[in-house]
Amino acid sequence: MATFTLASWATNLTYANLSSSVVDAAVKSLYNWAGCAIGGMGQAAPQIALNMSTVAGFCGPPTSNILGLNGSSADAQVAAFVNGIASHVDDYDDTHLAVTIHPTGVVASALLAITEARSATSPVSGPEFLTAFVAGIEAELKLGLSVYPEHYDVGWHITSTTGSVGAAVAVGKLIGLDTAHMQHAIGVASTQVVGMQAFFGSDTKSFHIGRATQGGMVAALLAQGGYTSSLTALEDKYGWLNVVSTRENATATFAQLGQGTWEIERNTFKPYPCGIVMHPIIDGCIQLRNETLSQGKDVEFVTQIALRVNPEVLVLTGQTDPQTGLAGKFSIFHAAAVGLLYGAATPAQFTDEVVLNETVVAMRQRVNVTTDNSVAEDQAYVTLTFGDGSTMEKFVEHAIGSLANPLTVEELKTKFIDQASLQIGGERAAKAYDVFTGISNATDVGKLSSFF
Amino acid sequence: MATFTLASWATNLTYANLSSSVVDAAVKSLYNWAGCAIGGMGQAAPQIALNMSTVAGFCGPPTSNILGLNGSSADAQVAAFVNGIASHVDDYDDTHLAVTIHPTGVVASALLAITEARSATSPVSGPEFLTAFVAGIEAELKLGLSVYPEHYDVGWHITSTTGSVGAAVAVGKLIGLDTAHMQHAIGVASTQVVGMQAFFGSDTKSFHIGRATQGGMVAALLAQGGYTSSLTALEDKYGWLNVVSTRENATATFAQLGQGTWEIERNTFKPYPCGIVMHPIIDGCIQLRNETLSQGKDVEFVTQIALRVNPEVLVLTGQTDPQTGLAGKFSIFHAAAVGLLYGAATPAQFTDEVVLNETVVAMRQRVNVTTDNSVAEDQAYVTLTFGDGSTMEKFVEHAIGSLANPLTVEELKTKFIDQASLQIGGERAAKAYDVFTGISNATDVGKLSSFF
Repeated sequence: MATFTLASWATNLTYANLSSSVVDAAVKSLYNWAGCAIGGMGQAAPQIALNMSTVAGFCGPPTSNILGLNGSSADAQVAAFVNGIASHVDDYDDTHLAVTIHPTGVVASALLAITEARSATSPVSGPEFLTAFVAGIEAELKLGLSVYPEHYDVGWHITSTTGSVGAAVAVGKLIGLDTAHMQHAIGVASTQVVGMQAFFGSDTKSFHIGRATQGGMVAALLAQGGYTSSLTALEDKYGWLNVVSTRENATATFAQLGQGTWEIERNTFKPYPCGIVMHPIIDGCIQLRNETLSQGKDVEFVTQIALRVNPEVLVLTGQTDPQTGLAGKFSIFHAAAVGLLYGAATPAQFTDEVVLNETVVAMRQRVNVTTDNSVAEDQAYVTLTFGDGSTMEKFVEHAIGSLANPLTVEELKTKFIDQASLQIGGERAAKAYDVFTGISNATDVGKLSSFF
Repeated sequence: MATFTLASWATNLTYANLSSSVVDAAVKSLYNWAGCAIGGMGQAAPQIALNMSTVAGFCGPPTSNILGLNGSSADAQVAAFVNGIASHVDDYDDTHLAVTIHPTGVVASALLAITEARSATSPVSGPEFLTAFVAGIEAELKLGLSVYPEHYDVGWHITSTTGSVGAAVAVGKLIGLDTAHMQHAIGVASTQVVGMQAFFGSDTKSFHIGRATQGGMVAALLAQGGYTSSLTALEDKYGWLNVVSTRENATATFAQLGQGTWEIERNTFKPYPCGIVMHPIIDGCIQLRNETLSQGKDVEFVTQIALRVNPEVLVLTGQTDPQTGLAGKFSIFHAAAVGLLYGAATPAQFTDEVVLNETVVAMRQRVNVTTDNSVAEDQAYVTLTFGDGSTMEKFVEHAIGSLANPLTVEELKTKFIDQASLQIGGERAAKAYDVFTGISNATDVGKLSSFF
């Protein structure tokens, strides 16, 4: 019943079902995603992906925008792919902390590209777009909840493995699939399991998002054309839930769709462009840097940075000696070093140059990590030892950007403008911010990208 | 080391390394594939897939042929997708029985499409094409051997899950990747795990082949452009081997690449367009039909068909009451009934019409299956009981098409011509047969499709 329950819920969802708080969370998720997709286009991964698609001749007539480029467009499949990669490449996107899913990238990249491609014949209003978006996000996150943590622990990149289903549900909702066709779409999406943790720290991590985006979109369009999969794809003995996880409780999880908790309201936004489990350490190191300086000391005299963290931190971000900016995003050693040395962790601290900088490398070597199960994933203990033997300690109870300590609307705006300006300039960035924050009032979402 | 070993072997492979027996097996595999891809285009699945790609505008300038259409072409990614689906949709392709992989579809569909796309600037000779093809096939099959049967038993469709890596190796070889770039290509391909057994009997089974074909092609092209994945993608703790299988011995398996056994020499070709584990039953039923008729009896008086088979037969083909032709390909009940009633199991016996035919349905209901671990997968016992109480029994020691009882060159030709003629007519089918059987002498493989 799981596949039917999900498909039926999604096809019956209406904008009237969404509370203002759900809409608010959806809009924040969307503009945070758009900022990341615009800013991320400065990285090599989305550029290589776009270049490959065009050089190889894999791109049909342009209908959909590459958000971070100056008016450039591609077919919906290529645009979704490239925007998906760009939105995740900086590890600066959103996070549903209970499942470590970055939910918006896959769903929104598929949805905006297909909306733009269809806008001439089937314009989509803000409320229609948001309804499809929320359907996809809830699908993806409930699916993730039904297999977490077993599915994640074996090594899957849960954002993309669940994301293709979320994208299929969102696109399927947008194009008006009925329940049976939606079931087939979910099936085609679910059989494409993209993403493993082996690729964290390389271009392929963000490829996962781009590819899952395409996979979900193609699934919905194939189902619309009558392509069959299975009406019980997810719960089949040899279907997604059983094949990719040793445990699942999708029947119970999907029964909660639209009842009580809307997962999108639990979405959070990253203050730092790197693995989220490192965020409390960065908070702690920035705070300790400020206290050090205010005491007239210099952080260069720190001889040891002792970290006490949740064990998952070393599993995901245990690289002691990263060699590239992307790898630095998964090095708790690098994160602590730049937090202390720069008092910041923006995209500028995760470039190849900074990762290879001698002072940074030397500071990384002074980082000592112990793990402690009693420390939550959004918590950390940081202790500095100085050359004179003195120490300074900090406990971070909830990292900035966590559910208990979320970014404010002002901080989200600053994050958007800062990263978007680097790629498309301040004026366009400001327009883009207005466009995406106002999406619920749009009469034709497919035209929005022409306004910035 | 597994990823490096595979990449290094593939990049160093030359045509001189291929014995005449390996080349012969490769050529047979290719023309058997081409016949299936041409004939399969009559099915809904590849047609819907092509239609979706063009209607949605996902197709760039035409460079590569859709084999079963009349001169129609598409971009290489779409052509590879559609040919991949068409080559598998009839379940009439090839099989490496030790791993239940149908190896050629994914690899050849990617390779021919990219060869055609590049033929204007980088023409590829028959020997170059065959070398890349063998590299991909060996990669795919050795990878499969390293995780079989655990990987298969959990529910993965092993043809496509290993196929994307095979396609990446083949395309990577063709475009001249060096070892490190090949490692990255293998990584991008491996993180796209497409295909679960839940979809057997639906359009999505053949989608797996088409999508894995694209996945491997895209992986090779991204790696060529400098896209990074992991140099240890397969053996990483959170990489393909560990994530998708509870057991692997890739290091040992890859050490055997090019040493002694070439897996392509163990490839076999299906005499019947359906799940291969049903083939011995079909053989037995056809033989019993002939004996029944020769004794002046009529098969309509059969009151029971008792089958004794390997347990895997019911796992994979246990559908008692299929409702579509595709589902009939995975019903041992249907297979026995048509073998007995028609004395044949060609594409004509796996149409929706025949599956729903009253006489066939009635005969299916008389089929009784018991499983027996001592019966090999290419063996079967069939016992007919007649209305008068008499019985007739048959033991099939090795099904037609098995390694011990392979199709002859004449039978392969008949298979090719029969299925290709239905789609493109007898004259073009004969030309296509000549083209693909002569591929080792071609000076420009990318032009071959223009000759039929």
